[in-house]
Amino acid sequence: MRATLMYGAGDVRVEDVPDPRILQPTDAIVRVTRSCICGSDLWPYKSMPASEQGNRMGHEFIGVVEDVGAAVGTLKRGDVVVAPFVWSDGSCEFCREGLQTSCLNGGFWGTPDVDGGQGEAVRIPQADGTLFVLPVAEDDALMPSLLTLSDVYATGHHAALGAQVVQGGTVAVVGDGAVGLCGVMAAKRLGADQIIILGRHTDRTDLAREFGATDVVPERGKEAVEKVRELTGGLGAESVLECVGMEDSFLTALGIARPGGAVGRVGVPQTPGIPGNRQAFLGNITISGGIAPARAYVEELLPDILEGRLEPGRVFDTTVGLEGVPGGYKAMEDRESIKVLVTP
Amino acid sequence: MRATLMYGAGDVRVEDVPDPRILQPTDAIVRVTRSCICGSDLWPYKSMPASEQGNRMGHEFIGVVEDVGAAVGTLKRGDVVVAPFVWSDGSCEFCREGLQTSCLNGGFWGTPDVDGGQGEAVRIPQADGTLFVLPVAEDDALMPSLLTLSDVYATGHHAALGAQVVQGGTVAVVGDGAVGLCGVMAAKRLGADQIIILGRHTDRTDLAREFGATDVVPERGKEAVEKVRELTGGLGAESVLECVGMEDSFLTALGIARPGGAVGRVGVPQTPGIPGNRQAFLGNITISGGIAPARAYVEELLPDILEGRLEPGRVFDTTVGLEGVPGGYKAMEDRESIKVLVTP
Repeated sequence: MRATLMYGAGDVRVEDVPDPRILQPTDAIVRVTRSCICGSDLWPYKSMPASEQGNRMGHEFIGVVEDVGAAVGTLKRGDVVVAPFVWSDGSCEFCREGLQTSCLNGGFWGTPDVDGGQGEAVRIPQADGTLFVLPVAEDDALMPSLLTLSDVYATGHHAALGAQVVQGGTVAVVGDGAVGLCGVMAAKRLGADQIIILGRHTDRTDLAREFGATDVVPERGKEAVEKVRELTGGLGAESVLECVGMEDSFLTALGIARPGGAVGRVGVPQTPGIPGNRQAFLGNITISGGIAPARAYVEELLPDILEGRLEPGRVFDTTVGLEGVPGGYKAMEDRESIKVLVTP
Repeated sequence: MRATLMYGAGDVRVEDVPDPRILQPTDAIVRVTRSCICGSDLWPYKSMPASEQGNRMGHEFIGVVEDVGAAVGTLKRGDVVVAPFVWSDGSCEFCREGLQTSCLNGGFWGTPDVDGGQGEAVRIPQADGTLFVLPVAEDDALMPSLLTLSDVYATGHHAALGAQVVQGGTVAVVGDGAVGLCGVMAAKRLGADQIIILGRHTDRTDLAREFGATDVVPERGKEAVEKVRELTGGLGAESVLECVGMEDSFLTALGIARPGGAVGRVGVPQTPGIPGNRQAFLGNITISGGIAPARAYVEELLPDILEGRLEPGRVFDTTVGLEGVPGGYKAMEDRESIKVLVTP
């Protein structure tokens, strides 16, 4: 089959790889019908050292079950399924608590012996625990929005939970990428009254407004902090969603947080320490969140999508076939695309 | 009057300073009857650059009201009062929420024009909001425990709240100083079942056991992490109290925290970033706490002390007069004393 590999910074190739097959009785094989490129894929795209064997890429996908191992009980051939960006057994102590990202028997896509999602098919370890069967046909028009349950919308929701968004609350979102935009939607869904997005790209901030943002702050750094304080009665936002992970973005997030407030962070950490130790300490700002247990949220987030109330899939503004994936990376890196959908 | 000044690392002197007097109608003057030396006073004691004018020291004290400004409404001459380690107006938005450390009109002791607690008397700004009247006489036997409401017991309680200690929960405490010991007591009071203290000084860990610790881990670093994991079914502690603030202690705190758990941190930050960004992110570990709003907790913590159920004052193992304060610093720095009580 064909699948995407990254061989180093800027070097993404689509190549022939072995077809996946059942290795464990708990496995399933899924033919991928939709996948996508993640903002987090851009970190290695910027910085990965050259590698001879390359890394398999992609961790968000929807597909159709083609085969199941002998121990798989909840899935059958033909099921349309969404895979969260971490696979998990669904039965360990952490999975039962809804923290599937810490599954004692789980792991990441695109690791040795595990396929990535940017390919024609994937072997799914721990298939019963990992996959969620969708009540739709494989070519349903809702596919883009359903695909966001894999990661980006679930991650925005996780940021909102970490930031302790409440009914009537004041929220600020740092990061106008697909996760930040989904964070706006999640905050709105949880009942926030005021939702401020920090961003300078009007195509993104316009979408943020449609997703529920009440204010747009195009300034950066100190000026952004001042502007958000102005918009929040001088005190800062009760809930801040940090959807970038850089030093500057984190310091901005703390700067615009109200003392006693919370930063829900889902931006992949790019610094050894969480920036702003003293600032967080003096302001008693809680820092929560992390890698989102997307699997835990599918059931809660699904109805709004199925019933057409929310369309997180609007973050996809470009669609490519599998051979177009390298160009998709470049479009996202150049900020010509918010998020790229892949139809293998 | 006599008061304590620090002129640089290791250089603490007791000297004559001007008597305090009412400067604002919201001020009170308090004659100090008990004060103490804080673990956080040891940070400048280790590292303060030489200063010609010196800094006034001390931020925990109990005393008797000697005079009040014209606008003070809730205090009268003769009241026995405890002062939290931050003064605050008691009426701003943050004070009303119980976050007096972020008071819009508050500040710290020992700053320009504000006395420190390690002296004979103190001018109290925002006296109505700051002071809490104690229903005891100035020489009551409970004084050591009542004095811990100024900071150390309140700070331990804040750590336990930040760490989300719950009835029946599993708790680990990093730091066997007075705050860590009070953290043990606070966790016990909140109903924790298992309380593990990390510490190697048996005088301290013995007291921790009397305060409610169920396990003592004398190991450090990696060995400590392994030991705590062993004691918690391999998964780590749900709640971790970080009562030191150093890089190593913070990494230990994250290492022993259960994924999805919380670190309540009250150790004064000694690093620009909060150590362990990636570790906290992958484990979805919440980092909460900060500078403790001691004023908010007095009312809740007082009854156990007044009724003799809890004795946080046992963290004081040395008592000195005011002229003995420089020796008190040295005893704490040399870890010959857990915490030094000062009777001016």
